[in-house]
Amino acid sequence: MKDAKKTILAAGVAVGLGAVLASGALAADDVKPRVRDLGIEIGVLQPGKWNAITDVEGVLVGQVSLIDDAKGMNTGVTAILPHAENVFQNKVPAGIFLGNAFGKMTGYPQVKELGNLETPIVLTNTLNVAAGLDGIIDYTFSFPENADVRSVNGVVGETNDGGVNDIRSRFVKSSDVLAAIEGAKTGPVEEGVVGAGCGTVAFGFKAGIGTASRVLPKSMGGWTVGVLVQSNFGGLLNVKGVEVGKTLGRYPYQKEIESADGSIMMIVATDAPLDGRNLERLAKRAFMGMTKSGGIASNGSGDFVIAFSTAKNLRVPHNADDLTLEEKKLVRNDDMTPIFMAAIEATEEAVLNSLFRAHDVTGFDGKTVTALPVDQVLGMLREHGVLKDAK
Amino acid sequence: MKDAKKTILAAGVAVGLGAVLASGALAADDVKPRVRDLGIEIGVLQPGKWNAITDVEGVLVGQVSLIDDAKGMNTGVTAILPHAENVFQNKVPAGIFLGNAFGKMTGYPQVKELGNLETPIVLTNTLNVAAGLDGIIDYTFSFPENADVRSVNGVVGETNDGGVNDIRSRFVKSSDVLAAIEGAKTGPVEEGVVGAGCGTVAFGFKAGIGTASRVLPKSMGGWTVGVLVQSNFGGLLNVKGVEVGKTLGRYPYQKEIESADGSIMMIVATDAPLDGRNLERLAKRAFMGMTKSGGIASNGSGDFVIAFSTAKNLRVPHNADDLTLEEKKLVRNDDMTPIFMAAIEATEEAVLNSLFRAHDVTGFDGKTVTALPVDQVLGMLREHGVLKDAK
Amino acid sequence: MKDAKKTILAAGVAVGLGAVLASGALAADDVKPRVRDLGIEIGVLQPGKWNAITDVEGVLVGQVSLIDDAKGMNTGVTAILPHAENVFQNKVPAGIFLGNAFGKMTGYPQVKELGNLETPIVLTNTLNVAAGLDGIIDYTFSFPENADVRSVNGVVGETNDGGVNDIRSRFVKSSDVLAAIEGAKTGPVEEGVVGAGCGTVAFGFKAGIGTASRVLPKSMGGWTVGVLVQSNFGGLLNVKGVEVGKTLGRYPYQKEIESADGSIMMIVATDAPLDGRNLERLAKRAFMGMTKSGGIASNGSGDFVIAFSTAKNLRVPHNADDLTLEEKKLVRNDDMTPIFMAAIEATEEAVLNSLFRAHDVTGFDGKTVTALPVDQVLGMLREHGVLKDAK
Amino acid sequence: MKDAKKTILAAGVAVGLGAVLASGALAADDVKPRVRDLGIEIGVLQPGKWNAITDVEGVLVGQVSLIDDAKGMNTGVTAILPHAENVFQNKVPAGIFLGNAFGKMTGYPQVKELGNLETPIVLTNTLNVAAGLDGIIDYTFSFPENADVRSVNGVVGETNDGGVNDIRSRFVKSSDVLAAIEGAKTGPVEEGVVGAGCGTVAFGFKAGIGTASRVLPKSMGGWTVGVLVQSNFGGLLNVKGVEVGKTLGRYPYQKEIESADGSIMMIVATDAPLDGRNLERLAKRAFMGMTKSGGIASNGSGDFVIAFSTAKNLRVPHNADDLTLEEKKLVRNDDMTPIFMAAIEATEEAVLNSLFRAHDVTGFDGKTVTALPVDQVLGMLREHGVLKDAK
Repeated sequence: MKDAKKTILAAGVAVGLGAVLASGALAADDVKPRVRDLGIEIGVLQPGKWNAITDVEGVLVGQVSLIDDAKGMNTGVTAILPHAENVFQNKVPAGIFLGNAFGKMTGYPQVKELGNLETPIVLTNTLNVAAGLDGIIDYTFSFPENADVRSVNGVVGETNDGGVNDIRSRFVKSSDVLAAIEGAKTGPVEEGVVGAGCGTVAFGFKAGIGTASRVLPKSMGGWTVGVLVQSNFGGLLNVKGVEVGKTLGRYPYQKEIESADGSIMMIVATDAPLDGRNLERLAKRAFMGMTKSGGIASNGSGDFVIAFSTAKNLRVPHNADDLTLEEKKLVRNDDMTPIFMAAIEATEEAVLNSLFRAHDVTGFDGKTVTALPVDQVLGMLREHGVLKDAK
Repeated sequence: MKDAKKTILAAGVAVGLGAVLASGALAADDVKPRVRDLGIEIGVLQPGKWNAITDVEGVLVGQVSLIDDAKGMNTGVTAILPHAENVFQNKVPAGIFLGNAFGKMTGYPQVKELGNLETPIVLTNTLNVAAGLDGIIDYTFSFPENADVRSVNGVVGETNDGGVNDIRSRFVKSSDVLAAIEGAKTGPVEEGVVGAGCGTVAFGFKAGIGTASRVLPKSMGGWTVGVLVQSNFGGLLNVKGVEVGKTLGRYPYQKEIESADGSIMMIVATDAPLDGRNLERLAKRAFMGMTKSGGIASNGSGDFVIAFSTAKNLRVPHNADDLTLEEKKLVRNDDMTPIFMAAIEATEEAVLNSLFRAHDVTGFDGKTVTALPVDQVLGMLREHGVLKDAK
Repeated sequence: MKDAKKTILAAGVAVGLGAVLASGALAADDVKPRVRDLGIEIGVLQPGKWNAITDVEGVLVGQVSLIDDAKGMNTGVTAILPHAENVFQNKVPAGIFLGNAFGKMTGYPQVKELGNLETPIVLTNTLNVAAGLDGIIDYTFSFPENADVRSVNGVVGETNDGGVNDIRSRFVKSSDVLAAIEGAKTGPVEEGVVGAGCGTVAFGFKAGIGTASRVLPKSMGGWTVGVLVQSNFGGLLNVKGVEVGKTLGRYPYQKEIESADGSIMMIVATDAPLDGRNLERLAKRAFMGMTKSGGIASNGSGDFVIAFSTAKNLRVPHNADDLTLEEKKLVRNDDMTPIFMAAIEATEEAVLNSLFRAHDVTGFDGKTVTALPVDQVLGMLREHGVLKDAK
Repeated sequence: MKDAKKTILAAGVAVGLGAVLASGALAADDVKPRVRDLGIEIGVLQPGKWNAITDVEGVLVGQVSLIDDAKGMNTGVTAILPHAENVFQNKVPAGIFLGNAFGKMTGYPQVKELGNLETPIVLTNTLNVAAGLDGIIDYTFSFPENADVRSVNGVVGETNDGGVNDIRSRFVKSSDVLAAIEGAKTGPVEEGVVGAGCGTVAFGFKAGIGTASRVLPKSMGGWTVGVLVQSNFGGLLNVKGVEVGKTLGRYPYQKEIESADGSIMMIVATDAPLDGRNLERLAKRAFMGMTKSGGIASNGSGDFVIAFSTAKNLRVPHNADDLTLEEKKLVRNDDMTPIFMAAIEATEEAVLNSLFRAHDVTGFDGKTVTALPVDQVLGMLREHGVLKDAK
């Protein structure tokens, strides 16, 4: 928890209790390394510049962390925007895959029916979905050109941070949601205990937000796929094939861990020109990437994936004179496979980043959820000969 | 609008502007007859005692109407409870059918995954879904035995009453939602301009809440199927086969009616022992009943059906010692057809009740949406020889 | 049955027992009028030139009737081709809606996944789906340019004609299927007791193949929607709103009719540029049109709809050098509603045509299934003032 | 190919060209070890007696191998029966998950709608699905008590063995299918190049049939989950976390392997009392297990999972006097997670068995598909310290 405090100070926004933290630069000594920096390379494709969802041109991420020991508050908001313009007026193609649907995500039916997304995506905790919806409406109404809008399909995802956050207090307000959306930016994405990841736990360790990306070779289209996860789930943690969870004694149905329940929200962005159908297929591959990290999609887990395309020629204007949409190109079904691989790899890596970059957090009940013992894990990987520098 | 005013006074709850109306007894002279009382009999099966969703034993309905001319407020809440006990601790089997899913209903993914419902169903307007969710959580938290509950899958349906209600003001508060739930009762259900139907419009006429039921003969199981609708959709109104909408000149793509968009929420309750799979099939039949009234499920329509079973042997306790559920009986697939017929008939009749019982309402923009000209319609039906008393 | 015999002779193909009939011109005096010719106008939109699925440019229909009293054979094949070229090499966008899925249709999963159709659609009886599949493969292999094809997703629909056809004999051979496909042509489509409709029964009357179409006004895009049905289902027959089935005493759960089970296959073609997602939505509207004719989608009914687009710019070449598909235009979601209306209307009319044009058929067990008593029905319609000439 | 020849002789059924092989005992020296016998332990749960799908009481497997070098024939049939009785009269609950649905499986819609399976499951090659359907009908008709049956929903799965089998010749006949079903038995299941696995290839190596099982501890219900796969897919082969495929240079988008396409059929059996909904969820977990072996569900892959329950209290009699089904118990949603884990583990192991037990096969074009170099792989695993005997 000490680290979290420092983080708050470093960000320079903490004001007494209930500080609302805009995501900001961390003091250098607080930053834990990302898995790739540790020599853990997942898959065969190459990451993008930031190895983050923001490598997909135009995508923005904003996070607000709500941390206050005195209140038992460890929660927040993470917002993902497909582009910096008015999303409602310039919708993007989208598809959602329901992995295990024990979750409260809103917006699914309309995205399924129409194949597009008309708002930012907001992630938060299970009992604050309403705040997420209201914040999205507030944001949509803030554009003068939306003055006549009377219907908004807000997409809000959630995981249950009730293990360390006093979730019944519903700390998140629509203003926090609005702040996360409005503070969204490109560039590196803060990971671990931040935003909607402040209170989440995965595989029995403190987890949170993680991200990664892949860029396809030109011969496969040259497109970028970026993934961001809010990890809060269970299973048997697997790091580059090494059954770390088993060795550490943290997996379902061992006495240490009573339940594997939890959830994971996965957001997949790509600049490949895909429609709703192929985006839903792509979303399914993120679920596969999560699986490779050791997730089992337990009964009580809400494993949802939202995928969208930023391809400019596929934007859907809210109003139009023509009965048909502008000219468009779409990736052929036959050429989807490398894009699928990219999503699988990036999701597995994003999950690992969410764990490796988290730090210990003490919950509202006074119990501390510890972070993954990174040094110990690295030792195991070295022993199995899978660290890059160990080869 | 005058009628609405009287209604408010009759209910005796109006207090200045922004009156929150608990659903109550209407003055006798305000009550418009139901379609069956007018000799319009839909289908071949018999209705239950109240010809309402409340004929299904245990089902309760609560409504709060929010009407204030000065504010342009014509909206509200309708809540349907599967039983009077703690629903979270005693979940009921449920299935949802997405007809045309241009809508913002929450709770679908989890109901689909788990096959059950753990909260009351709340209907309201499109932009107040968040208030619906918060109200459901408040209600769930109000039970002492739910003190440890940290996850609630609220089911909130909506239609867009933005034609007569200043919907962007988001008038509905979570307290209104709580009031609707807590005020729920059995017996006759108020129809027309009430609750979530205060501002809705169907087929170009003022519509609102409608209900109906069917009771199967003993040889077909003797079960009851009840339906409640919030009607706000378009198409070519058909009353017992007579193309009323065509004669009245109100149908899509005529200059009088620019759009057929809108939505309809349909709730189906039954005491037949059905699981989620057969309830989803049953829900699809309500969509068929809506179709028979002339609905076309236009692009912009959110046509959702939520079906649940009140069969006591199918209740799902939130906690249990056993790994398996109690003994249960389920209706065989082969014996579903009469239950399907009941849902088709009851839904068609419920839609008609929502129209026949509505009165004129003047919207926030000063324009009046008129009720169906009942006398004129009855004339047409008489002419076509389909009124019962005319045979 | 006499009429059927005459039909065979008129077609000039009957050769002893087991005659395989190519669909051909009927002797003028055998032809029963179509519903529109009788003054029964369904809906508000106008039909195309043939009022048939073949009004959609390029669409071809081929039918082979297998009738032989001595063998108890009353079955056949109806094939629908989206265009006259090699469909495998020039796939078309397609979507399938599962109404009530008690049926054996093949090809659904791949159409759902890829959003396209790569073969003709074949309709036949329930136990001859295998012959349908093999016939489609034979046809696909008959093109020299398909010499390397080793995977074919044949789409075969079926209804159960076991009431009048000795279905367990599996009379249909892959050669019959090939003959139906190769004999496909544009122009008027034979209806009633023909092709896959030889042995089907709907609402307790002999039914079969029926078709209809709608052409949208230019302002709504000017597109054509054509529907073909193989009707074999039950419910409460409704002809232009008049409850004919009730008056005639033929509806489910009356002692005369023990079961409402059966099925209906509906094929929807359009030249509107739609992708798989909007075609699946369009398919759902055909289910709505079937509902308006009185169908109830009983438990044992296989109610399937296959919709495809013939828009040339949407053809999917089997092989391509580019990673992306050619330029394309698609109808906006917002402009789908009139196309939906067209499918609803055309399907309702197609069902009626399948009934009005059928004649009595004596089944393999010696029992005769009578045709709808058209004169009696017309009398009822006249009485209700819904015949056009009666206005 | 020599091994295959010997296999034929060992089985003692080869008769000239086109020999139809009943699955039989292999000569001891031909048998390659299973992965667990090599020290490769997948997951944390324990296998059943046979470590096969047949560990689920009542389940039977029958296989017919069709191998003939001269004809380029390398294909066959694998049949899985949920019990030894008349399945049509005693249906079992079932659910199907469509992973990537580029495949021709039949029977999906009805299983989805009704939640049960009424025939054996037949696996074969892509172009012989029709033979599979006809064989299932033949089998169903062979029971005297099915004399009145006129509707059969056959479930046939397939993968494309066209790489080594001259698939366009459609070698499989309905009699082969019948033979596989009728020859089904309990006990150990032959793996590798056998039945429907004669011509399949996975990860660039010869694959085929594989199986495995898990038995839950009593505290988790004590149920058994068995899995059988027909593996024919691609990706980056992963053996207990070691990226074998990468080291061996066989993975998608390397020049050695042009395509990752293919398919995998996965059959999951359990004696846990589950209905269709939870069986579909369980089926999804087999897809996760496949993922852990390195599969990527490429665009051209048909990844289907069929799960069924053998729980006797859940049998669905075809005919019944009662409107409701017999008393039944079902596993609570909350207790599904260990069953999910069992399916994930067993599927991963079944895939590995299908590879480790296959031998080289020379295809119809004269090219040989080699088996996985087991010794080399074991060396890699030893090096990574993951072999059990190496710890």
